[in-house]
Amino acid sequence: MPALKGATTPIYFGSFIVTPQVFHTTPLTFALVNLKPILPGHVLVSPRRVVPRVTDLTPAETSDLFLTVRRVGRMVERVYGATSLNIAIQDGVHAGQSVPHVHAHIIPRKAADLDHAGGTDAVYDLLDGDEGDLGRVFKNAVPMEEGNQSAEVGNVNSGRRSRFPVVDNDARKPRGEEDMRAEAEMLAQEMENEPLD
Amino acid sequence: MPALKGATTPIYFGSFIVTPQVFHTTPLTFALVNLKPILPGHVLVSPRRVVPRVTDLTPAETSDLFLTVRRVGRMVERVYGATSLNIAIQDGVHAGQSVPHVHAHIIPRKAADLDHAGGTDAVYDLLDGDEGDLGRVFKNAVPMEEGNQSAEVGNVNSGRRSRFPVVDNDARKPRGEEDMRAEAEMLAQEMENEPLD
Repeated sequence: MPALKGATTPIYFGSFIVTPQVFHTTPLTFALVNLKPILPGHVLVSPRRVVPRVTDLTPAETSDLFLTVRRVGRMVERVYGATSLNIAIQDGVHAGQSVPHVHAHIIPRKAADLDHAGGTDAVYDLLDGDEGDLGRVFKNAVPMEEGNQSAEVGNVNSGRRSRFPVVDNDARKPRGEEDMRAEAEMLAQEMENEPLD
Repeated sequence: MPALKGATTPIYFGSFIVTPQVFHTTPLTFALVNLKPILPGHVLVSPRRVVPRVTDLTPAETSDLFLTVRRVGRMVERVYGATSLNIAIQDGVHAGQSVPHVHAHIIPRKAADLDHAGGTDAVYDLLDGDEGDLGRVFKNAVPMEEGNQSAEVGNVNSGRRSRFPVVDNDARKPRGEEDMRAEAEMLAQEMENEPLD
């Protein structure tokens, strides 16, 4: 049951099928909503091909990925009434990557949006916390393909430390699949209003 | 005195002339070494055209910027013996941007490189601290064009909070121009060994 009309084949994020969360695709790239967004409109953009590192991308995939980041970023900034964006890639295990599939985080920002959590830069602490630990959240909540391929994924960052729990991450429940599908359908519609360039 | 052979016109990062720090250019993009790198090999990649937001880039500039991020990232990972990269863009004031000119941070990472500072994700606290506050460090140390255009730049994030000084940022001195030029010359040479694709 894809959120995106016309989607016919399953879309993989690492070893996870995320088709209901996908709101935009190009031949080389897709964009999906998050299970536990750090802020409203926090989405991910990934290459269709499952590769762990940016250097593994072809030049065509690299261009398409970041043209999509630019266009999706502009859309979520508009839709969620934001004024700025954090764009971040953890490119490799030692940079904090938790799912071995290239993904750019796009996080819409506005003035004072994280004042309750410590200020503008608290976004990084949240990205480092449970919300940002995609391996863990997908392992706990998203249907998987062919048994438990996620064991390795879930353990990749077992040594990472979330030193500053500025908000109670564990109190934030992962969303249900219907919530995510509804947001993906809304964002798919909004992408149709977004200029190509 | 450019570090890069053949550079003939000044290169601007915001209102600052950074020509001696530049180690790579394309017709649309340039890469420069940092005044106060968070970790060895921490460099920046920017469009030649001074625009504040990713959405201000043309599609051609967007592609070229990120193809350059990919190629420069691969080079610094190799040269500095790293195994991963953090890639981050603060796209707008409310995302923590301190110089109103698009720039991607590329930070080479290796296992246990920030254990003394708290672990893998301490990179974000450092990016949020003085080292990452490019407006402040450039204001203090880099020759400027046409008087003090940086007043606005330096004040953009006067309200930002660096809540977790995991290392003593103020103890880290900005490098001299000769240090930066020497690194830029070394990296310019290394870029010649880097495959185009």
